[in-house]
Formats: sequence, C-alpha cells, structure tokens
Amino acid sequence: MSLKDFANAKAVELGKDVIRMTTAAGSGHPSSGLAIMHTVITLMYDVMRWDPADPWHPGNDRLVLSEGHAVPAIYAVYADMGGVVGRDKASARKLTKDDLAQLREAASVLDGHPNPAEGFPFFDAATGSLGQGLSVGAGLAKAARLRNIDRQIYVIIGDGESREGQIWEAMDLIADEGLTKVVAIFNCNGQGQADHVSKQQSAEVVAAKAAAFNFDVHVINGHDAEAIKAAIGDPAGRNKPLAIVARTEKGWGCKSLKDQSNHGKPVAADKVDAACAELDGTLAALGSPTAVDAPSPRKPVAAEPLTKKPLTPTPFADAMKAAGMGSALEKGKIATRRAYGAALLVLGAADERVVALDGDVRNSTFAEFFAKKFPARFVECKIAEQNLISAAAGMAAAGFVPFASSFAKFLSRGCDQVEMAQITRANIKLVGSHAGVSLAADGPSQMSLHDVAFFRCASETDDGYGRPACVVLHPADAVAAYAFTWMMAEHEGMCFMRTHRPDVPMLYKPDAKFKIGGSNVLAEGDAITIVSAGYMLHVCKQAVEMLAADGIRCTLVDAYSFPLDAAPILAAANKTNRRILTAEDNYLGGLGDAIALAAAAKGNYIVNTMTCRKIPKSAISTDDIMAYVGLSAADVAKRAKEAVGS
Amino acid sequence: MSLKDFANAKAVELGKDVIRMTTAAGSGHPSSGLAIMHTVITLMYDVMRWDPADPWHPGNDRLVLSEGHAVPAIYAVYADMGGVVGRDKASARKLTKDDLAQLREAASVLDGHPNPAEGFPFFDAATGSLGQGLSVGAGLAKAARLRNIDRQIYVIIGDGESREGQIWEAMDLIADEGLTKVVAIFNCNGQGQADHVSKQQSAEVVAAKAAAFNFDVHVINGHDAEAIKAAIGDPAGRNKPLAIVARTEKGWGCKSLKDQSNHGKPVAADKVDAACAELDGTLAALGSPTAVDAPSPRKPVAAEPLTKKPLTPTPFADAMKAAGMGSALEKGKIATRRAYGAALLVLGAADERVVALDGDVRNSTFAEFFAKKFPARFVECKIAEQNLISAAAGMAAAGFVPFASSFAKFLSRGCDQVEMAQITRANIKLVGSHAGVSLAADGPSQMSLHDVAFFRCASETDDGYGRPACVVLHPADAVAAYAFTWMMAEHEGMCFMRTHRPDVPMLYKPDAKFKIGGSNVLAEGDAITIVSAGYMLHVCKQAVEMLAADGIRCTLVDAYSFPLDAAPILAAANKTNRRILTAEDNYLGGLGDAIALAAAAKGNYIVNTMTCRKIPKSAISTDDIMAYVGLSAADVAKRAKEAVGS
Repeated sequence: MSLKDFANAKAVELGKDVIRMTTAAGSGHPSSGLAIMHTVITLMYDVMRWDPADPWHPGNDRLVLSEGHAVPAIYAVYADMGGVVGRDKASARKLTKDDLAQLREAASVLDGHPNPAEGFPFFDAATGSLGQGLSVGAGLAKAARLRNIDRQIYVIIGDGESREGQIWEAMDLIADEGLTKVVAIFNCNGQGQADHVSKQQSAEVVAAKAAAFNFDVHVINGHDAEAIKAAIGDPAGRNKPLAIVARTEKGWGCKSLKDQSNHGKPVAADKVDAACAELDGTLAALGSPTAVDAPSPRKPVAAEPLTKKPLTPTPFADAMKAAGMGSALEKGKIATRRAYGAALLVLGAADERVVALDGDVRNSTFAEFFAKKFPARFVECKIAEQNLISAAAGMAAAGFVPFASSFAKFLSRGCDQVEMAQITRANIKLVGSHAGVSLAADGPSQMSLHDVAFFRCASETDDGYGRPACVVLHPADAVAAYAFTWMMAEHEGMCFMRTHRPDVPMLYKPDAKFKIGGSNVLAEGDAITIVSAGYMLHVCKQAVEMLAADGIRCTLVDAYSFPLDAAPILAAANKTNRRILTAEDNYLGGLGDAIALAAAAKGNYIVNTMTCRKIPKSAISTDDIMAYVGLSAADVAKRAKEAVGS
Repeated sequence: MSLKDFANAKAVELGKDVIRMTTAAGSGHPSSGLAIMHTVITLMYDVMRWDPADPWHPGNDRLVLSEGHAVPAIYAVYADMGGVVGRDKASARKLTKDDLAQLREAASVLDGHPNPAEGFPFFDAATGSLGQGLSVGAGLAKAARLRNIDRQIYVIIGDGESREGQIWEAMDLIADEGLTKVVAIFNCNGQGQADHVSKQQSAEVVAAKAAAFNFDVHVINGHDAEAIKAAIGDPAGRNKPLAIVARTEKGWGCKSLKDQSNHGKPVAADKVDAACAELDGTLAALGSPTAVDAPSPRKPVAAEPLTKKPLTPTPFADAMKAAGMGSALEKGKIATRRAYGAALLVLGAADERVVALDGDVRNSTFAEFFAKKFPARFVECKIAEQNLISAAAGMAAAGFVPFASSFAKFLSRGCDQVEMAQITRANIKLVGSHAGVSLAADGPSQMSLHDVAFFRCASETDDGYGRPACVVLHPADAVAAYAFTWMMAEHEGMCFMRTHRPDVPMLYKPDAKFKIGGSNVLAEGDAITIVSAGYMLHVCKQAVEMLAADGIRCTLVDAYSFPLDAAPILAAANKTNRRILTAEDNYLGGLGDAIALAAAAKGNYIVNTMTCRKIPKSAISTDDIMAYVGLSAADVAKRAKEAVGS
C-alpha cells in the first residue's frame, strides 16, 4: 500500500480515537489533533527511527510537539504502535487503546498537554505554553551533534504559535549552528483560538520568513504523507536547515469540527458517532483502503546514554589560578560571577556532561572561560534569553548538564520558559549575574529585583521525584560561588544561582562546607540575629561591625539557599532574644518571607525585614545606590538598633 | 549648509560630549552612542516635529531608543537643543551641557539607560533591557491613530538586539495594524557585547527578514544624514510599514573606540583628549565645517492630552445583563473572568481612555465583549505576550488606560516587560485569567503558579510617585472582579488582576466595598482565622462549613489585595486565639508570606500556611486537582483542626 493510502487510513482510524478521547475527557482540542494527524503518522510510522518499547533510547529520533494542545493525535498513534509509558523503565508498560479514554485524568499519564515527567517519555519537554518547542529541538540537535549521534529532531509548530518571537530566536540559533538535523514543521491550518490567524502567520508569509532566516523551505499539502516524506528528504544531503510549511485543515476530514469556533472544544457525546462517520466518509471519498496494520518503525541508531560519574572538586585556589585569578586571590577580592566562571572551567574538565550557554554577555557572566576552553560545548545564543533557557532544557533532555547564564535581569525574560522547564523537571542550571541593586551605575533596567521571589516560589514545591522544583543558591563570596557551581552539577534538577557584579572580599575559608537547604553562622552575638545572603551579606557584616562598636553584639547568618532549613536560624535567634532582622537587596518574596514563615509558624519570634522598597535608578557607586534605596550598612545598623530597642 | 555637513559637524561636536560624559561617569557605552549619532541628529534637529521646551506635548513626534545603552548620544543632543527635564512641568528646567557630567549620578535625571520617570520626559518608556522598544513604538502609533494625531514614532533598534524575538512580534503587529507611522531603524554596527553579531543579524539578513515581515526596507549608510532623511521620506506616502537598515560603525569617527572590546567601556580619563582629537580628524577628513548652530526643530502638530474624568460605575447587575449574563446572574454563578469582560464593556463606554489588548484568547479572558463593542480600541496582539505588554505600555504613555489580558500563565512570558513597565511607571492593567491550580484539565502548562509571587514582590515597592510599583487584585467572585476592574481604571499605576476559570457563586452583595490594600471578613468565629483569596476562598468557605459541623467556628477573611493592610486581619485573629491559617492555590511568595511577615513583625501569632507544594498535572475536575495537590476543602479543614489542636 502506498504511504499516502496508509496515512489516510490511519488518520481516519486514529482521528476517531482523538475525537472519542477528548469527548471522554470533556475537554481538549480534537480539531488541532486532526490537523497534524498526517504529519504525525508519517513521522512516527515511517520516517522516524525509534523504538516504541524503549522511548528512552538515546538513539531515537525525536518529535517535539511545540503546539502541545494537539497532543491527542500523538497519544492515539502511540497507543496504536504499542509505545511504552511510565516514569522509568522499571515501571514501564505499553499504552493501550483503553488508556486513551483516561485522557487528562489525575491518574493518567496522558496529560492535557505533553508532560513527559508524568510518564510519557516519548517527549523531551512539557509544551503547551506556546513557542518553546523549536528551542528545545535546537538543544536536542546540538546535543546529538556533540555526541556524534545521528538522530533527527522533528518539531511541529502551529501557525498561530509562530507569532511567538521565541520561534524566530530558535530559527536564528539553528541557522547559526547549522543544525540541519532539526526540522521545523509549521502546521498552517489558518485558525487560532479566537479567530483566524493573521496574514503574517499565513503559509506564504511563514515560508518567506523562514527563507529570510536562511532555511530551505518546502511548502506542501500537510495531509499528503508522501509530500511530507519527500519534503523531509534525505537528512544527509542538507546544506541548510529545513523548514516545512504544511498547509493543513483544522478538523481535517470531519466537517463538523472544521468550524473555527471549535478550537479547544470536544465533540458533544451525542455527536461523536456522526463525527466519526464524517471521517469514514472522507476516507471513502479519498478512495484509500480502510483496514491497515500498524507497522513497526525503523530502528534507532546505536547510542549510549550519558552517565553521571563521581565528581571531585578541584581545590578553590587551584581553580582560581587556573582561571588567571591568582593575583585577585592574593588581593582577597573576587566577584561571585568571576568565581562562577572559574568553577565552570574546572568543572568542564571534570564532567563531560557539562555544557554552557550564554546570551552575548559571556564576558560579564564569565561563562567566557568555559567558552574559550571548550568551544564545542559552548552555545552562544546571542541576545535571546527565551531560546537560551528552552535550548538548555533540550540539551538536558539528552543527558547534558547545561549551565545557562545571562544577567539575572534578562533571565526574567524567560520566566515562562523556566516554569515549563520545571514541569519538564529539566536538569538545567541557570546563573544570573549582576543581580540586585548593587549593580548601581547601569540602572534599574539591568538590575534583577524580582528574581528572588520568582525563583524561590518553586523552591518548596515537590517535583514528584523527591526534589525541589527549583533550588536557589545565593553566594556571598567567591568560595561559596565556586562551591555552589559544583553543587549544582551534582544536584539533579533545576538550580538558579544569583551572582553579583562587585568584587567582594572572601568571607569563607577555601574548604568551607555548604549544602542545599543550608546556612552558616558567621558571627555570634546576643542582641539580634541578622540574616542575609549574597552581596547584602557584606553590607550586613559592616553593619554588625558598626553595631559592635556601639556595644551591640549581633549574630550574622548567611542563608544562601532556598529551600532553606530555618531551624538552625531560629535556634541561633534563641540566643538573641528571639529577635531577627533580615536584609536583602531585592524586592519582597525572598529571604525575609522565608524567615517570617518559619518564625510565624512557631509564633514567638520578632522578625524585622529589609528589602528594596523603592524603584532604584542609576548611581555611580554601589554604596550610593544602597544608600538611595535605604539599604546601606548604616540603614541596617539603624534598623537593628530600633529592633533591639537601643 | 547641507544636512550632511551639519550632521557630521554635530556628530563630532556632540560625540565629544558622549566621550566626556561616560568617562566622567566611569561607565557607559560611548562607542554605541557614536554609532547612532547621525541618526539621532537627523531625527531630532531635522525630521522630528517636537518642542524641546515641552517634551510632554501630545503632538510631538517621538523617539524610542530601544537599544537603551546608546542613550548618551541623545542626552548630548538634548542638552544642545535646550530640551527640558524634570518629573513634571512645574519642576521642569533646561538640560545644560554641564548636566552631562553628572550622567548616572544618583541625583541626576540622566540615568544609565532611558528612564523617563526619573525626569527625562523625552522618552516614553524605560529601555535597556533589549528588544522592547519597537513594541512600545507600536503602542504609541496605535494610540496616535486612535486619537487622529499625526505624530510619527521613530524607534532605534540595535542589530544584536534584533535577535530578541519580541522585535519580530512587534513587526508582525505593526504589519497587521498597518502602523505606517512607526519607523523601525535598525542600527547595524556589526558588533555585540561579547563578540561580533551573528550573520543572522547582519544588515543583509535583517533587511531580508524585514521584507519577509511585509515592511518596505531601505538599506542605507547610517552616517549619511541625507540618506537617513531620504529613507524616511514622506510619511503620508507610505503604503507599508517602513524599516530602515542603517549600516553604522561602533565608535564612529574615533579609531580608538572602534575596537569591539570597547563595548560598554568609557575612554580612560587620560585618553579623552586624544579620542576627541580623532573625532576632529574625522571631520577634517570629511571636509565638513566645524562650527554649527543648534537649529530649532519643526513644531509639533496640534494635539490635546487625554484627560481623566470622574467615573461612576454602572451597577453590577445592569452590567452583567448588558453583557448577556442575566441568566447566569439569576443562577448565581459567574466566573471572575466573565465579570471582568462585563466590566470592561461598560467601562469602555464610560471612559474613552480605556483600550484593551489580548493575545488570541479574548474568548477565554472575555476581553471579547469589549473587542466587539469597541473594535477600534481593541488590539488583537495574537500569540505574542511580550509584545502585548510592551505595546500596552506604549499606549499608556500616550494617555490611554490599557487593559492587557491573556491566561495568567502566558503573561509570565513577559515578566521582563512587566518589570520594565514598572520602571516606566506605566499605567497599565494586566489581567491574567485561568490562574492557579483550579484550571484542572488543561494541566500545568496552562496554570499560573508563580504569578502571585512575581507580581506581589513589587507591591510594597514605592514607585517614587507615592504609589506601589504594582497593585495585585485577586477577586473571589464576580462582584469583586467587577469592582476591581473599575478600581484599576481609577488607580494610576500598574495593576495585575488574577481571574479564574470556574464559575463560582457570589460571595458579595452587588454593592460591596473594596479598596486597594483592603480585605473583608466574611465569617466570624473563635477558633482560627482562615485567610484566602480568589478561587481558593470558595474552597476555604467549604472548609469553614465542614469545621462548623464539627463545632469549630472559624473566621474567614478575603485578602484580595497586595499591598495588603494586615492590621485588620491580625485584629480579627486576636479573637481566634491569635491563630491564622492561610490557603492559596499557587506557589510560595503570596498571601501566606504577607501574613507571616505581618505576624512575625509582631511576634505573637501562630501562622500556618497552605500553598501548592506539588507540581500539578491534568485532572478532569477542579475538585480532583485540588485534592491531588492537597488543597481540597477537606485538606484545609484537616489543617485547621491540627492548628487548633482538635
């Protein structure tokens, strides 16, 4: 039988599954599923080399469904092919046709949108918040090249979705890196949620855009499996990245679903049979046969997974010297961002899984050390932070440990991408430099002030694998930043490290110990416990010295981690009349909140908190700007005095 | 004198100012300033119609410097033209050449990046976090069209910056709306921060992209003022939006600055004279005269500012009926997102300043009511949330009151844009629907769980004009959502309202009173004070009823606002043994934190908090998913019982 006939027959057979499962769930997007059916069938049965019994196989070709709401189409094909589901190989089982009726149920692995971590390992990333899949595909393709694995990556993108700028950020990266093994397939059905798509997202204009972005472009009928296969062609012969613009119909084959108002609406239960009959009628009209088998796909290429090996951190001083910072070390002042760069350099030698990505600020974040030593394992994503984060998630899905850096401020451009990576349980390490008010002269457009609240908020969320959805590490000195970089590589799961611009003195001995959830007491007193982290800890240390001169002895705690085990801090505060003062150079939602939550759960501590309570501006020096926002050492000392009633 | 000669002479004269002011500041980007000098000079002296004595004039042509780090060039021109600075007309004064030496100082209006709110009203938006200016320009142009004001909007975009996908989102919107009065000028100097720009951002490829996005494109020499002016041409004759790709040199005219390693580095103090001499040498080589006057620009077109008029809210029931929700009202259940739509409809009639923007989900957010009634005042931004938020900020700069809506989850794509709008003090109203876990079936890719932490974190930050940097409103029922929509229109400053998917019963009488910072006691008891907001308040109400059946009487508080005045809540808790339980369907960083902060500052309350502590997945019903994450009514009741020791 011709591929065309096969695909038509399967599209009708499985299209009915799509209709039935969404109706059973009471929600979902059957018309979008029908639009991509021929593409998915062509890929999964014919083009892709993969093992339905082992979706974890590192040699499998991959399919990223960027327009995640169309996922019932893939579930239907997957069940037909006997693909296995489960969180790991030990619990894996074949997906059955019966499972489809549990779509979207709490106990089902078939989430409303692609969600690999719930047990659908065919996917590499949670998608559904639109525009992110092509970046994930770029990351997967870059990872495959690094490992010299000849796997192909197919990404299906909605036409309406292609309005998201991130799609074009990914196109730029794919072109820059010459990632010819990722194929961008634009599913152009002409309909969005609220209305038709804009002319700017029409097949013609998408094709013109892709060509301008230096892709080879094929515009095809997306319901012709042979045209799809021909457009994909032989990957080995590609000189340029490939974009396929597939003209499709939303609700293909099913007249009653073609009305655009049906976006995201299942067929009413009493209309399901009629809708299925419409599909049968379509097949009859096409003259394709009705009964077809489910052939096995082609075998994946041979490949081994990347595995984690034990890491032995290089001694701190050796690493600083290796990064050319021997004299800074002797002078005793090193910015946390520089220590990060030095750590990444030695870590890169110790762990082949480590890769780095940056957004045209590698000479500020100090990812540059790594980039120079390991150019193949460094991805310059240029000024496109959304793509930076999602591409890192793609590389993590292939077993790498990506460190993605930019100014912390600019990472906030990718908050949605961070959230999606948390759903994916992506093992990525985000490093935001120049954080907080201490940046000074460049002004607020470069200062991250919301980042602590944003990243902390997921730090006590269980990711279902016994880990926090996000670990936040906030080093106060080079020793800590250095140790945290190694800790991030050791820890499986998302981490965010917040570094600062200024050079600061060392607070820790080179062999100081840190742990996720930990904190350290740096000074002990009896009047009040001052808790801080990052740059602000230095300000607090100055305040503690000023207070000591006035006879007020303070305990000083470095609370460098979220999640934070507050018990030792409360224990320290028990020796300071249960008085606590927190100080941060960011907005609300961070350390003060965390300590207040712990204290208020007990109920007999007095917690004062200082955060940045004023939108900052430029100032020449860090001291100037800290004073401007009321976070100078004198301000902290004053507040501590008030708190102790002195 | 020819425009070309004039611009060369000014570029050299003011280029020296750029060099000197950045050296005086000890930081800044002189080489970027020199690259855009001819463009800025051509625009500000010759092309633009504007009044340096009245930068607030609503008829002024506008210049948006998207690549904000190049701002010293504009400061130099502005001082030369005697432009006035200050936060308002009452405090306005002319900027002088002497002021330039205070660049970046805490007391200066000349911030490191464009920052209108600190007293530089020539700009409409804070820029410097890249990629956002063209969206702001699109908003300004749309606003001008709505008011029939013939002002032109010029936007200067860096080549490296054009890697940001948001630029292309803005291009799409400009093309969709036919905004021919906004001119996108790409400054292609070929150099980024860390390295050369990619070939993907070369003048040739940027030009090809802009053409594919349906712009007329002129590629010119960006140091030829006459070429710049000719490319701009006569706006009245434009059939398509215009993009100018200007080839420039970073560090134009000054050999010692041309080295790309000089990005963001001022000239050393002892090299300033030599650098200025190089500029003089360039001028001599060009053969342009040296001394030129500063001519006055052309006058702005006549225009009046949009002014705020007193608003009298339509009665709730009338508004629901006007939106076709009379029967829902009778049945007593209306989703907060629907009430928002109904409110916007009547508000649109009451206040001509109100405009709405949405991202292809207007039939879910219910911005659709407004879109149908006021199509001219509605902007369908399609699936491009970054552009949505920045375009709203642009419309706000022109005096409109934009309501920008999408799923709350998707607004998190624009966190950086929100942060920049806070720095701008943009009077925008963000409305995020389908918030929190209650969305259920669609799964976590559509659920906003970080939004409360993100938006709340700026709610206690003073914006310098006596207002919070962001007000967060979280309605539990239709009455509240309706009232909050009016409150947002009344309030000057950024607001975020969080609405939910499910239809919920009314908790409030139609004339209930609300205020920013407020809360309401819905039930009084003696055992414990339960504090919640939004959908979760309904869950808590159920829990309170379950507890009452067990003889445990609870106080129930709706804490719908950040900033939150916690004093009345603590006062309520004084009558419940100082015991408090908070419950939220989002991650950390929200209501529980706020109450804990207030309680821990006093020190004698016991605060228990419930938040979403597990990454959710799909579930068929809201009840299912609330149980899955441990936030069912039974869970709340159980926790309350534990807290009261029962």
